[in-house]
Amino acid sequence: MRMAELYPIEQKIVLGSHLFTADDIVRYARQFDPQPFHVDPEAARHSLFGGLCASGWHTCAAWMKTFLAFWAAECLRLRKEGKVPPELGPSPGFRDLRWFRPVFAGDVITYSATLLDSREQGSRPGRLIDTILCEGINQNGEPVIRFESKVMEFA
Amino acid sequence: MRMAELYPIEQKIVLGSHLFTADDIVRYARQFDPQPFHVDPEAARHSLFGGLCASGWHTCAAWMKTFLAFWAAECLRLRKEGKVPPELGPSPGFRDLRWFRPVFAGDVITYSATLLDSREQGSRPGRLIDTILCEGINQNGEPVIRFESKVMEFA
Repeated sequence: MRMAELYPIEQKIVLGSHLFTADDIVRYARQFDPQPFHVDPEAARHSLFGGLCASGWHTCAAWMKTFLAFWAAECLRLRKEGKVPPELGPSPGFRDLRWFRPVFAGDVITYSATLLDSREQGSRPGRLIDTILCEGINQNGEPVIRFESKVMEFA
Repeated sequence: MRMAELYPIEQKIVLGSHLFTADDIVRYARQFDPQPFHVDPEAARHSLFGGLCASGWHTCAAWMKTFLAFWAAECLRLRKEGKVPPELGPSPGFRDLRWFRPVFAGDVITYSATLLDSREQGSRPGRLIDTILCEGINQNGEPVIRFESKVMEFA
């Protein structure tokens, strides 16, 4: 199967949700983004953000984690139905990432994916490039992250 | 001081280097991007990549880590010279991220930043938006990552 047969263009697919605990936020940020508002709850209260919040890169990484868990379940479901799941390859990159608002400790982010486009890579027969709108909203329905990803697909 | 007084527009600044060990690659990927070529050296050898390589999100996160270490040292240097370092705020996002080639276990990535533009945010006096080209090359001088970041600056 191809992605575009499985997921109609422009139809938003909910991938799952991710809870950002204070511990996870601090652990990630200590390794990669040790700014006061990501590692120190007290300093964060007095920052522009007003509270401990996740590194933007952590919000990205949790999108990936949520997508992969969704995808593993989808592949299982399709195989059970006797279908061959699309074969996805690596991503060459993405466009226009926006962090709209902070992800605070205790926030639950629901991630989604919307297939925007799927087309043959001119130079390489049997390879498609899928364009996927990736989004995350918090428990209040407010958008926190959005980016447009490219993913290779082997047809 | 303002960023644009400190770093001439279009001048590339080397931030530092980051070694991607196999252990670090696997540890990051197990948490956020558990695809075979990121977590299993044997499976990775038989993959499209031909060897264990870092999650693209790990390559991003290491840019941030390297930038923050550079920035802490810069602030210290400026204060020693009696100067007031630019005050950077959060990033609203970035554009056009490209992962050009895999970052393999043992690769050393040298990250750089190039200030492309710095301008007043029309709506908010005292706030600038800096546009920074962020790049990473491996030990062979080959580009592995590039993206264009926006960062808030308080003037």
